[in-house]
Amino acid sequence: MSKSAEEVHPTKAFGLAARDSSGVLSPFKFSRRHEIVGVVTEVGCKVKKFKVGDKVGVGCMVGACHSCDNCNNDLENYCPKLIFTYNATYHDGTRTFGGYSDVMVANERYIVLMPENLPLDAAAPLLCAGITVYSPMIYYGLCKPNLHLGVVGLGGLGHVAVKFGKAFGMKVTVISTSPSKEKEATEHLGADSFLISRNSGQMQAAMGTMDGIIDTVSSVHPLLPLIGLLKCNGKLIMVGAPEKPLELPIFPFLSGRKVIAGSLMGGMKETQEMIDFAGKHNITANIEVIPMDYVNTAMERLARADVKYRFVIDVGNTLTIA
Amino acid sequence: MSKSAEEVHPTKAFGLAARDSSGVLSPFKFSRRHEIVGVVTEVGCKVKKFKVGDKVGVGCMVGACHSCDNCNNDLENYCPKLIFTYNATYHDGTRTFGGYSDVMVANERYIVLMPENLPLDAAAPLLCAGITVYSPMIYYGLCKPNLHLGVVGLGGLGHVAVKFGKAFGMKVTVISTSPSKEKEATEHLGADSFLISRNSGQMQAAMGTMDGIIDTVSSVHPLLPLIGLLKCNGKLIMVGAPEKPLELPIFPFLSGRKVIAGSLMGGMKETQEMIDFAGKHNITANIEVIPMDYVNTAMERLARADVKYRFVIDVGNTLTIA
Repeated sequence: MSKSAEEVHPTKAFGLAARDSSGVLSPFKFSRRHEIVGVVTEVGCKVKKFKVGDKVGVGCMVGACHSCDNCNNDLENYCPKLIFTYNATYHDGTRTFGGYSDVMVANERYIVLMPENLPLDAAAPLLCAGITVYSPMIYYGLCKPNLHLGVVGLGGLGHVAVKFGKAFGMKVTVISTSPSKEKEATEHLGADSFLISRNSGQMQAAMGTMDGIIDTVSSVHPLLPLIGLLKCNGKLIMVGAPEKPLELPIFPFLSGRKVIAGSLMGGMKETQEMIDFAGKHNITANIEVIPMDYVNTAMERLARADVKYRFVIDVGNTLTIA
Repeated sequence: MSKSAEEVHPTKAFGLAARDSSGVLSPFKFSRRHEIVGVVTEVGCKVKKFKVGDKVGVGCMVGACHSCDNCNNDLENYCPKLIFTYNATYHDGTRTFGGYSDVMVANERYIVLMPENLPLDAAAPLLCAGITVYSPMIYYGLCKPNLHLGVVGLGGLGHVAVKFGKAFGMKVTVISTSPSKEKEATEHLGADSFLISRNSGQMQAAMGTMDGIIDTVSSVHPLLPLIGLLKCNGKLIMVGAPEKPLELPIFPFLSGRKVIAGSLMGGMKETQEMIDFAGKHNITANIEVIPMDYVNTAMERLARADVKYRFVIDVGNTLTIA
């Protein structure tokens, strides 16, 4: 029999949680092991990577089998027994409770050391959005100076992809349905150019010019115009996950040996490499810091994509026992 | 102004051609430059690769720009100015007339030397079907002993993919809608196993076992079960070209970093490598040799996929002036 959460994790934590299907978060006391970014307050006797006082982070996952081919190749993110940070079942049978709380406990394998020069709040979203775009850029070679990268969708993932692309020395073009995002893309984020995906003249003029595209859009959208933007041997990398299937025209990507590939987060070793790279190039996410009691309003705003580009909750200073 | 075909190619050729939209082939005299496999009867003064008497072949293409990145990388097949062997316009403005005729003239770049040990008739289809499956197998690393290759569809392309897969030392599984093809696949072609794509129990049992799949099917078909057959990092290579878009479910290939890729024939350098490899491993296509006057019947049989697996026309012995 599994031990109860209280037996396994006697340290009590307090946070906010969605406790019914309404999605509204309310105060909640629980036995827990997780936070997101913070400072190490205690280490286990076998911990070698970290010491008390280190600035650290935990991303989307906190466990895996550690014996399959993927785990052995530092690809815990593709382990069939991957344990997500939020609302999953841990090895000991207890639940993983996410990071909206005061303390967190995690296996050192799933903790990254945050660069000293980056503010913790603005660096935190890189542990999900950052690694999600960085990993396929590395795996598919879209990380070399003078290559031309397209970024579809300018949101939490897209705006970080633009920053990594520029840090790699690439030419970066943002492709968006929203003309209003052009100024943001080119003036504030450093993109070299901007295409409105519904402007067929603009899209036609850019045909066959891109080495790769990071597609962050998670709603149903046409792939044909994106395949057309690719050079021969070009790669269209999907990191958004539309619920319904997309239409895939076959001949246009046969005739240029093009590739459509999926990618989901990245392994922990690569996540550390990503955050080190971000530190070196001063890359952070654009964020809006909110207090804990704003979280339900933030959820509503997220549903209408009303944030540039990630909310970060200041749990440490604003979480109070109700 | 372009010269007429007669001025540019004074050698008269005779063959069969579809001369109206009915698709029925009838006798036709024309100025031409092309045949498919045969023996060199004459070489130009600058030709270095071939001599009179060599057994040679010409595949699907006879020209390209020779100055773009693709041409410079021996990927003429992806040159935007690629000239197909059939019914295309050559550099000089004349038409390319295919290979149903007595003589042919071609640039040496588009000619391959046929291995001495292979019969010309059974080796000829490799210049299209062979290179079409061999090229992506090499490019995507699906050519290593003990990898597991799936081959979808057992026709002209598929049966050759099985033979190459076995010659590379791979485990090969044929996936087909036709239970009647199992014996052919495993007993005659050497496939290790056979899956009926509509048998969900069989498909379920094979989930996550394949390193790559060559999909030769050119009609609309579901991709989801094929994506499921792939291991993490697996590659689904499309070499058939369905006219309508296929449904692409996104999350199943995100969650295993899977790839869907297109591939179209191969470059001439690689075509020579392919035919040399075929010679070394005694690989030929399974063919039915027909006389020239059977060609319209053969076209009808092709339309109902009634051939194992390629017709080869014995033009040399059966083409007569009407």
